[in-house]
Amino acid sequence: MIQNPEVQMPIMLKGVHTIVDEGELYDKLKRSFDEQKPLTIKLGLDPSAPDIHLGHAVVLRKIKQMQDLGHHVVIIIGNFTGRIGDPTGKKKGRAALGDEQVKANAQTYCEQIFKVLTPEKTTVRFNSEWLSKLTFEEVMKLAATTSVARMLERDDFQNRYQNQTPIGIHEFFYPLMQGYDSVELQADIELGGTDQTFNVLMGRTLQKHWGLEKQVAIFMPLLEGLDGVEKMSKSLGNYIGVQEAPEVMFKKVMEVPDELIVKYFELATDEHPDMVEKIKNRLADGENPRDIKLTLANIITKLYHGSEETAKAQEFFETAFQKKQIPDEIPIMTIQQGQNTIDHIIPNLVEAQLIKSKSEFLRLIAQKGVSFNGEKLEKEGMAQGIISGDVLQIGKKRFVKFSIV
Amino acid sequence: MIQNPEVQMPIMLKGVHTIVDEGELYDKLKRSFDEQKPLTIKLGLDPSAPDIHLGHAVVLRKIKQMQDLGHHVVIIIGNFTGRIGDPTGKKKGRAALGDEQVKANAQTYCEQIFKVLTPEKTTVRFNSEWLSKLTFEEVMKLAATTSVARMLERDDFQNRYQNQTPIGIHEFFYPLMQGYDSVELQADIELGGTDQTFNVLMGRTLQKHWGLEKQVAIFMPLLEGLDGVEKMSKSLGNYIGVQEAPEVMFKKVMEVPDELIVKYFELATDEHPDMVEKIKNRLADGENPRDIKLTLANIITKLYHGSEETAKAQEFFETAFQKKQIPDEIPIMTIQQGQNTIDHIIPNLVEAQLIKSKSEFLRLIAQKGVSFNGEKLEKEGMAQGIISGDVLQIGKKRFVKFSIV
Repeated sequence: MIQNPEVQMPIMLKGVHTIVDEGELYDKLKRSFDEQKPLTIKLGLDPSAPDIHLGHAVVLRKIKQMQDLGHHVVIIIGNFTGRIGDPTGKKKGRAALGDEQVKANAQTYCEQIFKVLTPEKTTVRFNSEWLSKLTFEEVMKLAATTSVARMLERDDFQNRYQNQTPIGIHEFFYPLMQGYDSVELQADIELGGTDQTFNVLMGRTLQKHWGLEKQVAIFMPLLEGLDGVEKMSKSLGNYIGVQEAPEVMFKKVMEVPDELIVKYFELATDEHPDMVEKIKNRLADGENPRDIKLTLANIITKLYHGSEETAKAQEFFETAFQKKQIPDEIPIMTIQQGQNTIDHIIPNLVEAQLIKSKSEFLRLIAQKGVSFNGEKLEKEGMAQGIISGDVLQIGKKRFVKFSIV
Repeated sequence: MIQNPEVQMPIMLKGVHTIVDEGELYDKLKRSFDEQKPLTIKLGLDPSAPDIHLGHAVVLRKIKQMQDLGHHVVIIIGNFTGRIGDPTGKKKGRAALGDEQVKANAQTYCEQIFKVLTPEKTTVRFNSEWLSKLTFEEVMKLAATTSVARMLERDDFQNRYQNQTPIGIHEFFYPLMQGYDSVELQADIELGGTDQTFNVLMGRTLQKHWGLEKQVAIFMPLLEGLDGVEKMSKSLGNYIGVQEAPEVMFKKVMEVPDELIVKYFELATDEHPDMVEKIKNRLADGENPRDIKLTLANIITKLYHGSEETAKAQEFFETAFQKKQIPDEIPIMTIQQGQNTIDHIIPNLVEAQLIKSKSEFLRLIAQKGVSFNGEKLEKEGMAQGIISGDVLQIGKKRFVKFSIV
């Protein structure tokens, strides 16, 4: 049962950065409601990034909300684009190998995508299916839709052209291919991050050129990571991965800066906009952000691990961090990014007089006298990748909290 | 029997504007001589201009000289390029019609080409044969050979880009297609006018990219027309068409400005460079250019009409113009371009008191008392398209020479 557009619109628009355009979306939803026929939602994915985090998931969650409203999603794996990524290689063999690799990547990727999306309302297609069949003449028809100057308006092309960094002519076809995928699918809506503006709007241009109804373009904002400043990214270490253990996920959400709480509700949960409005009001009324973050951590962890695991994670969090087993005031030790493992910081611990020597430290670990975030360390090499806020306890009274810079 | 490169080189290089490069040409000729295997000479033709004049024939004559040296020519009709000329048209039907038209044009064109080339040593091919078979992936491989910046170096693209005149992305493929034709043919030499520099050099780039030996690029200069200033062109009226009657051709060659005599020997005849050298010396020795032009007119007319017709044309020329049947000093009448027919100029003739009235003029014509370039006018509408230098004789003593402006 597809609901009327008035019910759907607020959910569709929750957290959206830009939409082109709202009136067209309303008309599509109206027709979809009248005919009880789901809209086709398109998402193009480049299966090169194997690990999905909450930043990637912003678009996926929005799509999941559309699925919950009854619509159908088509994920386009850009394997044809990948295949021509470096067409200077002359050997056919290499291209074929690339295909296998792309398919393997896509499978891993889809496993993670289905941690968010509903498989029954999702179709996965590879764009080589139709793109590889285009003739030179059809490719030229595609090329003729767009001028060189228009293409050079795209930020990255413009910069490269101005900096005299060569742009291969084939690169102009990436946006054209992505746009042509929308023609092939007759997509009603395409989603993307704001960095995808040019490519997603190309879909509208091409659909119009082929005499089809234009897709609505919905752009989602970028989600800042735990540092509250930079875009969430694995390489910056400020991320929450969708595959992380429930305890880790729960604790990381608790580290979200207070000023991002509402944004995380908007972009990292499927909560109704009315609920997000209530959260805003509670914060404005002076409620302790920590309590609201407990709700947020609970909601997010539940999305990826279910109720039972989430309950355990919350209990663990409260035992280890909240119920004062760790003192409120802990000295902070600053560690350089890249030096953030237990192995690396033993000299720092000696210098800070938390341990006398490496051998004492190893003996204490062997005696189970060392804990990391409330969990006993089993051996020296454990707890790789310390992040800001992690706590190390040595014996009963020696505590240190880390800050990674 | 293919001769040694020392014999061929001077003929190959006669009148050439630019060659890239001479050493490579020598090597190819050497190998061709050693193996007694003809080189493959490529000429791409755009069959849009139906009437060939001596300006067009400059490249054809050079190729004819190569045929006489034993090499084989492949004429490429760019019908695929024509087919995508305006790919915005959505109807397949139109494209198919275009094909028919291109083929009809090509046939007319080839009939004229064979007024210069030797049919037995010429193959005509349509580039749709291989280009229409390229897949999207292969087209991208082609596109990846060249950067956007490199393409925008081409004069016309550069001007349009700077003047913000849109360049469709498909237009970048015209030079790529022409270059790919060289890959397909494994051409040894490609000829073109100097305006074809970018496109012909693209053939070298692509052959290298495909691991083939690069073609030698030979560029022929533009031939000025009878005005001695502008490039020979039908629309400027300063041309000598290869299909013109022997008398007309002979007379027009006699109108070539003296300072272009050597250039016409170089570019419009197949005479050996040693002979051209002798002509230079005769002119330097103060021989009357008119006598040398008689030789030139004889050679050129013979190339297109054979000895017998040429002898007649020469006789006609000498009777009508040389043997003083027409006075040396004839009053000149200036006529606007577009007004240059007998019908148009009757009022001018009245005004200049050459005739009393239109009716007198028509009566004189009926009495065979009016000649045009020495030939009796049969009726009023004859002698369409007066050109500069044409002479009208009315009765015995009234002469007028025309100058078209």
